[in-house]
Amino acid sequence: MSKNKFEKIPVGVLGATGMVGQKFILLLAEHPWFELTELAASERSSGNRYEDVVNWKQGAAIPEKARGMVIKPCEPNLKCRIVFSGLDASVATEVEKAFAEKGYWVFSNARNYRMEADVPLMVTEINPDHLELVRHQQRKRRWTGAIVTNPNCSATVLVLSLAPLHRRFGIEAVQVTTFQAISGAGYPGVASLDILGNVIPFISGEEEKIECETQKILGTLEGDSLTLAPFVVSAHANRVPVEEGHLECVSLRFKQRPAIEEVIECWREFKGVPQELQLPSAPLKPVIVFSERDRPQPRIDVWKYNGMSSMVGRVRACSLLHIKYVVLGHNTVRGAAGASVLNAELAVKRGVLD
Amino acid sequence: MSKNKFEKIPVGVLGATGMVGQKFILLLAEHPWFELTELAASERSSGNRYEDVVNWKQGAAIPEKARGMVIKPCEPNLKCRIVFSGLDASVATEVEKAFAEKGYWVFSNARNYRMEADVPLMVTEINPDHLELVRHQQRKRRWTGAIVTNPNCSATVLVLSLAPLHRRFGIEAVQVTTFQAISGAGYPGVASLDILGNVIPFISGEEEKIECETQKILGTLEGDSLTLAPFVVSAHANRVPVEEGHLECVSLRFKQRPAIEEVIECWREFKGVPQELQLPSAPLKPVIVFSERDRPQPRIDVWKYNGMSSMVGRVRACSLLHIKYVVLGHNTVRGAAGASVLNAELAVKRGVLD
Amino acid sequence: MSKNKFEKIPVGVLGATGMVGQKFILLLAEHPWFELTELAASERSSGNRYEDVVNWKQGAAIPEKARGMVIKPCEPNLKCRIVFSGLDASVATEVEKAFAEKGYWVFSNARNYRMEADVPLMVTEINPDHLELVRHQQRKRRWTGAIVTNPNCSATVLVLSLAPLHRRFGIEAVQVTTFQAISGAGYPGVASLDILGNVIPFISGEEEKIECETQKILGTLEGDSLTLAPFVVSAHANRVPVEEGHLECVSLRFKQRPAIEEVIECWREFKGVPQELQLPSAPLKPVIVFSERDRPQPRIDVWKYNGMSSMVGRVRACSLLHIKYVVLGHNTVRGAAGASVLNAELAVKRGVLD
Amino acid sequence: MSKNKFEKIPVGVLGATGMVGQKFILLLAEHPWFELTELAASERSSGNRYEDVVNWKQGAAIPEKARGMVIKPCEPNLKCRIVFSGLDASVATEVEKAFAEKGYWVFSNARNYRMEADVPLMVTEINPDHLELVRHQQRKRRWTGAIVTNPNCSATVLVLSLAPLHRRFGIEAVQVTTFQAISGAGYPGVASLDILGNVIPFISGEEEKIECETQKILGTLEGDSLTLAPFVVSAHANRVPVEEGHLECVSLRFKQRPAIEEVIECWREFKGVPQELQLPSAPLKPVIVFSERDRPQPRIDVWKYNGMSSMVGRVRACSLLHIKYVVLGHNTVRGAAGASVLNAELAVKRGVLD
Repeated sequence: MSKNKFEKIPVGVLGATGMVGQKFILLLAEHPWFELTELAASERSSGNRYEDVVNWKQGAAIPEKARGMVIKPCEPNLKCRIVFSGLDASVATEVEKAFAEKGYWVFSNARNYRMEADVPLMVTEINPDHLELVRHQQRKRRWTGAIVTNPNCSATVLVLSLAPLHRRFGIEAVQVTTFQAISGAGYPGVASLDILGNVIPFISGEEEKIECETQKILGTLEGDSLTLAPFVVSAHANRVPVEEGHLECVSLRFKQRPAIEEVIECWREFKGVPQELQLPSAPLKPVIVFSERDRPQPRIDVWKYNGMSSMVGRVRACSLLHIKYVVLGHNTVRGAAGASVLNAELAVKRGVLD
Repeated sequence: MSKNKFEKIPVGVLGATGMVGQKFILLLAEHPWFELTELAASERSSGNRYEDVVNWKQGAAIPEKARGMVIKPCEPNLKCRIVFSGLDASVATEVEKAFAEKGYWVFSNARNYRMEADVPLMVTEINPDHLELVRHQQRKRRWTGAIVTNPNCSATVLVLSLAPLHRRFGIEAVQVTTFQAISGAGYPGVASLDILGNVIPFISGEEEKIECETQKILGTLEGDSLTLAPFVVSAHANRVPVEEGHLECVSLRFKQRPAIEEVIECWREFKGVPQELQLPSAPLKPVIVFSERDRPQPRIDVWKYNGMSSMVGRVRACSLLHIKYVVLGHNTVRGAAGASVLNAELAVKRGVLD
Repeated sequence: MSKNKFEKIPVGVLGATGMVGQKFILLLAEHPWFELTELAASERSSGNRYEDVVNWKQGAAIPEKARGMVIKPCEPNLKCRIVFSGLDASVATEVEKAFAEKGYWVFSNARNYRMEADVPLMVTEINPDHLELVRHQQRKRRWTGAIVTNPNCSATVLVLSLAPLHRRFGIEAVQVTTFQAISGAGYPGVASLDILGNVIPFISGEEEKIECETQKILGTLEGDSLTLAPFVVSAHANRVPVEEGHLECVSLRFKQRPAIEEVIECWREFKGVPQELQLPSAPLKPVIVFSERDRPQPRIDVWKYNGMSSMVGRVRACSLLHIKYVVLGHNTVRGAAGASVLNAELAVKRGVLD
Repeated sequence: MSKNKFEKIPVGVLGATGMVGQKFILLLAEHPWFELTELAASERSSGNRYEDVVNWKQGAAIPEKARGMVIKPCEPNLKCRIVFSGLDASVATEVEKAFAEKGYWVFSNARNYRMEADVPLMVTEINPDHLELVRHQQRKRRWTGAIVTNPNCSATVLVLSLAPLHRRFGIEAVQVTTFQAISGAGYPGVASLDILGNVIPFISGEEEKIECETQKILGTLEGDSLTLAPFVVSAHANRVPVEEGHLECVSLRFKQRPAIEEVIECWREFKGVPQELQLPSAPLKPVIVFSERDRPQPRIDVWKYNGMSSMVGRVRACSLLHIKYVVLGHNTVRGAAGASVLNAELAVKRGVLD
């Protein structure tokens, strides 16, 4: 690990005024390894003090340190080597490329590069080995920096619950129906007239992301080549009037049908590299199993385990596939900014930035 | 048809003060064939004027006629031959039996007799022939009356969309995840502290009802014997903060995979006996197909088509089964009181009460 | 009255794609006197068929007739003499003036001209005589047409309850705290992240409108000069997570303190010119008094009386002023489009357009 | 102060399974002075382990320590001298009396004794001297223990904002309209069908409590005799679909009208005895002034300052009285259990229990 014990690593946030950017700032403000030194955003905001232009929407206050920082344009001349990207998809392709070309490591929550064959789509506990793709990426694109992405929020919550089962029992088929929080749509995002006392059974592009990204995350890397996980995922994506926390009803078929108890034990035992390395943002356990008959529930449970674990409940036999269960995760923490920070921690710890 | 054109048929409501009872009263107040003459409820209420004891929770006002009616006990000495039962499951077994023994025809929304082999579980458009089970029921139980049930609200919404497809293409497997309105739990029902800004991924007994009742409704009657439909149904049942309207995400596998266009056409063409006979409570079409990409939605669409049709949308291919779609229905109209009234209209029209 | 019994009067809607414009279209689609012949909106929409560009947000479907109408620009060459304005305040000043100059009668829901000394701010039941201001307006501004406005939604709901009491007992002071529905902010309007499970104790400009407009509506016209009503109004304006219906808690002091019964009787007896003339959009009674201890309530009562009456409840003594009560009205019907339509009906009936 | 530095004081909770009882347990679990040793509840629960019978509804988990505690009946033989009462009003009169007679100090959130002339109704920052009433209470009732009450949740939030202003400028009149959270009604409390997307403009008994209790808390104690504060309070109480946090719109008239800046400064400077003594549950500042134009807001701000401060915003001139503002407080922390704990801390610190 390259990190000097006594000196923090300077980092920046791209898209710092947006909803994901705000979460990055919260997570980085007190980070033991990273020092938030740069905030970048669109032309409209740059040149202003952060607190003067941000439409701050987080429960916690703007970190003291960030308040007076002057926003810079999203150009690759920030004084840091690591940037976290909460950029909008409409600009992320160009901006992230510009940074990677100039030697920056971009840990991105934007969807733009996720499905590129040479870009890691990482959930740190599941496929830390995919970080190796970066070498291929750098060669192929002649970049001195790199782009490392984290998945869509719904995919992240799901795949954390799938990974240990897939590894042990082999998954053959996944059916998932989501109940997604409004915070997943950013701000202003979902109009209140559309969602108050209602359900919207459609989220543009979401089902495709859940289906593809899950296969990539659980895919196998051999050399520079990533083979998608060989099972089918079928998703129904829906918006519900919940502030934070995506809940998902999942049905699975395995190669070998395990007993329910084995499934639960498998989740309880699951640990990944972030737990072994005790990365600062790693949850104690990536998957928590609830035993109450009606939990987890988003409003009540979403903030448990620092919003970094997938919470599973109602595990039971399925008469069509093999098992069914409910899983809940924090869409803007584990499902966005927190995921990128954990990925960056791994990269630093492994010394791949050196 | 036995109905004298100039004289309405007197009918009663059991459990008249409850939520389902209230809906029965609304639907019967202006009914062209039925005359609401008797209201019966628990000991606590009987003897009182209806408007003095009911905790009325409907959008429309208490029908003028019902206001001053004196509530009677739920005993089989009401002056009518048809009763609609909105009784609580805790008392329905005994009370409904007592009425049927004494010659009353009980059209019941209670779950108690639904899965009895000799009791019709009817969705009027789908299995009107199951009404024949009543002859068997009367012989076997030595009743001069009868019990005819309608299904659970979620099952009703679902099965209306399944029936035409099953008939034409043969269904092999059904996966359904529900988003159920709070009105489905009666009053006071779901505590606001439990559901505000939240999803509850559990409704006691609901998944079992959806799975079993669907198979019975689509089952085949030969003589006195009903064979369950030979396909698997697997359900996830959830409560959401919506007032009225159960939304369901459905995935299906068929014996022969139809094109999406064939599925849509099949729904559009679907008509049942209530439509042919132009029964007063029959919707023009039992299934409505929406073409917008994000509809139907409960708050916005639930009252369309008088709350008596299943509204289908987002019909698309499923990578796991064959097709997937969303269906919405009014849980307390089509899913409860309205279903029983339509069943009774059929029975009257066919003259089976004579 | 100038209206030929057999020929409807052609009318247009300015800002036809907005939320208020949509309500105008619903109210005019089946109007017995008016024929909706022109839809006008911004450059972006004009030239398109209405149903192709509108983001329709009403419970009822787009009226058949409006679907295929081609939207025109907001320029004063529409084939009608009456236009209803649901224009945004950012453009209403110029556009409405352009129409009035060219001889159009503009019945406007926009706030821009409401407080102009020569522009009627009318609630048809309360100050129909203010329509006379139009003569002064036309002379002064050399317009051949005219602008007639209706008040802010919260002011309308309030003033309908104040007017009969002011007339009979003389009001000296009004304290009002509002609970305003999200539909009052248009679409997309209030972000769901801002209002879900929350109250926003601020609505820009709203308190000032309530305070000023109330005084103008209840003011006295002598010749061309309008004297504001000589009492103080103090408002607290708040947004709540309710779809439709503004609820207001009101406290009043009178010149002569009436008994509670006199207040209730005064409301019950209240009728205005629209009721006398039986204008098509007039509610049977402008003010309805509820006797239940916890009513009116917005979700439950807002659509009663066609959304055109103010519904009053909880009338009781106030230990600080004289009485206090709750009032509810439909913010987008009586508080917006419906108010303008009723004003236009009066103008037509009185023949002032001739 | 009697507290041995090294030994915590054993305390019990009456009504331990209810919503207020649960909050008491949370606040006492880690208390630096108090050791939670006794849980008492109704016959139905007593004899059982706490976690086996409680319907736990708090965001935080049941404190480890409380889980296995065996619930006792509410009889005055608990092994402690201080009890916190979250009892229901239907039983509090008898049970609290029984405890006080036997020498227990009862710090009660129940309303039953609040308005008794010899019972302190205390907000620790405001009227700590009212604790003296206990001597009178003990003499008059021949009790060796005592009852000390805290006010209704809405009154507490309000009076914290009134007290410093009354002391400095003299209040003459208070008008308040509340927006109360559903958690104020306990569990199951408000039915979701009643409050979803709605406002209920009535809460039984609430307006009276706000009006009377405010006058008592700000009243003057001379000898054994308490004189109510000589100003009028008039309240409108309403329920809104918010989980936690009562928001109130307040208008005030003073004897001497202060400038807005003086009002704000008065709040900012305000400190009470709990702050001076640095009692463990005392907030740093009892009143916090927000400067944003649309804050405080309940969902977003309610947990700030540990839920123990009244948060004030939108301070502005009132055209009817003198000033108006918005105040928010946590109804189940500062408005209930937290208030009692703070009262008990004062009593212990002052040594009045010795």
